[in-house]
Amino acid sequence: MRREDHGMAFMLQYENVAWYEDGKVRILDRRIYPTKTEFVVCDSHEEVAQAIADMVTQSAGPYTAAGMGMALAAYEARDMAKDKAIEYLEKAAYTLSHARPTTVARMEQVTAGCFEAGKAALEEGKKADEAIFNRTIDSLNRRYSTMSTVAKYLVDMFPDKGNVMTQCFAETIVGTMLREAKARNKDIKLFVPETRPYLQGARLTASVGQGQGFDTTVITDNMPALTMSTKGIDVFTSAADLILMDGHVVNKIGTYQIAIAAKYHGVPYFVTGIPDLDHTDVSTVTIEERDPQQVLEARGVQNTLEGVKGYYPAFDITPPHLVSGVVTDKGIYTPYDLNRYLEGGVKDYY
Amino acid sequence: MRREDHGMAFMLQYENVAWYEDGKVRILDRRIYPTKTEFVVCDSHEEVAQAIADMVTQSAGPYTAAGMGMALAAYEARDMAKDKAIEYLEKAAYTLSHARPTTVARMEQVTAGCFEAGKAALEEGKKADEAIFNRTIDSLNRRYSTMSTVAKYLVDMFPDKGNVMTQCFAETIVGTMLREAKARNKDIKLFVPETRPYLQGARLTASVGQGQGFDTTVITDNMPALTMSTKGIDVFTSAADLILMDGHVVNKIGTYQIAIAAKYHGVPYFVTGIPDLDHTDVSTVTIEERDPQQVLEARGVQNTLEGVKGYYPAFDITPPHLVSGVVTDKGIYTPYDLNRYLEGGVKDYY
Repeated sequence: MRREDHGMAFMLQYENVAWYEDGKVRILDRRIYPTKTEFVVCDSHEEVAQAIADMVTQSAGPYTAAGMGMALAAYEARDMAKDKAIEYLEKAAYTLSHARPTTVARMEQVTAGCFEAGKAALEEGKKADEAIFNRTIDSLNRRYSTMSTVAKYLVDMFPDKGNVMTQCFAETIVGTMLREAKARNKDIKLFVPETRPYLQGARLTASVGQGQGFDTTVITDNMPALTMSTKGIDVFTSAADLILMDGHVVNKIGTYQIAIAAKYHGVPYFVTGIPDLDHTDVSTVTIEERDPQQVLEARGVQNTLEGVKGYYPAFDITPPHLVSGVVTDKGIYTPYDLNRYLEGGVKDYY
Repeated sequence: MRREDHGMAFMLQYENVAWYEDGKVRILDRRIYPTKTEFVVCDSHEEVAQAIADMVTQSAGPYTAAGMGMALAAYEARDMAKDKAIEYLEKAAYTLSHARPTTVARMEQVTAGCFEAGKAALEEGKKADEAIFNRTIDSLNRRYSTMSTVAKYLVDMFPDKGNVMTQCFAETIVGTMLREAKARNKDIKLFVPETRPYLQGARLTASVGQGQGFDTTVITDNMPALTMSTKGIDVFTSAADLILMDGHVVNKIGTYQIAIAAKYHGVPYFVTGIPDLDHTDVSTVTIEERDPQQVLEARGVQNTLEGVKGYYPAFDITPPHLVSGVVTDKGIYTPYDLNRYLEGGVKDYY
């Protein structure tokens, strides 16, 4: 993997940046944005999987990256016999979908879809990389469309004038939510916890808010409770890495703590996303622990004496009694009634 | 003010470092410790007041710094006529005690005591700087003695083997608490939130824990709630900038949020310190807001786009219904019954 510098124009063109072109996948490095705008350039699908594992891209980004990685795998297999190429794609699908333990099931949907598209192209004598690339772009557009619908329901829950607290980075929904709020002339101020250790809130969520012209205030992660009491927060909202069928929400570390503070202050918590059929309850979830060194340093500077340990659970789980509503593309559900979401079928979301 | 580098030995000799000597006050710069061990050197009492305002020293440190600053003021006035020198000391007492809005009342006790000691020395034809220095060292020793007593009551609340979560830096009580726990062979693991933006938890509290040989784990400030549920925290404890007579606790930002999480998880919260006679209720408290730029950067690196705002309340207020006990030098009180602490008189604590 190599790094490349690019202009903002490229990034703005593809907000959800992971891009297959010329036998490479370029992924916007969200670990350092907006301090620097750089792309990690992957020459193989294994490098794409590594980039996903290394959190180069986050939120919905890994699903696009995995699709682009599958296109790259098809490119790598371009001179193989058809059966070998199909086998190669199948292995690549496994590698990419297993890059991070928490999201395997949803990733498998993505890579399985790409595999089928690639296999069909190969059997028709067409270019598999193009077929997978196009499928990934279609998914991206479908996701934007779905998230625009989710945003309409979410913004229904906002006051005409008020304060909204977010948690972590949720690129698509933050963007569609703010576009919707602006279209309805809702006067919303954003309060954004910084989300240590990677600071996705300060670096990414706040950048989207500021970029769309909203009054955006960053706070450190020990301030949400006080901010609720001093600033009058009307709504707390987050996306989710997983919404379980029993109403538990798996999301970026800190969501649980803010949800507890929100309950204490009588602030409703709305989570956005699609309930995950493959996750019935918390027994189906593995919470990643990541490199504790990330907790012991900030921006590359060590904070602690030699010998001090760190603990870095990447996610937490918020129980349904702290969740006021699950905002989906079909409307808002109580977290205790998510099976009703399944009625009438579920769209192929990723 | 200038910076000077010193060895660890000096710092370890005077754990609570602010030191008057040779017409200067040296203050250990706790904003950068332990990444670097440096001292801010003040050539005037105004510089000491500025250093206190700039949070060079924290927790109980400012009280010692203010005393040393008063000794320096006496040195500055050494060639003045007695009446002028007394007037000079009185002005210095005002300047030093008003360095930070939250702690004025307690600071005034310190500087008033120093003023009296200096005035008495001047009237007896003795050196006022020596008299004030000696008074400040006496106060320091008295505080250590008091805090050793507080620590005994606090450690009574610890299990023989278990996990204790702290909040922020509380140099004297963390030190005396750990000495007491070790003396009683209690097998305690410490969990230390890092306390952004100044990272006092990671830099200072964790250093004391590690230095005294305890298993010490740092977490980011969005992790206390999850850590309570995954690691089994037995006790949450903090010191306080102020304990109001009605049982509210003013302490480093984040304490309130952890206290809410502790209540949710059934973890008792014990605050250590002496109830403040001059603060009957929250109407007597001014919560400082500090430079929001501190929130927008970490370790000198900007996290946010131009135009994003920051909010930095330095303290928060925890209501008595979240406080399990106030641990004093006279024993442990429910926060609703602090007037009983006054029975039999109160020691001159600072």
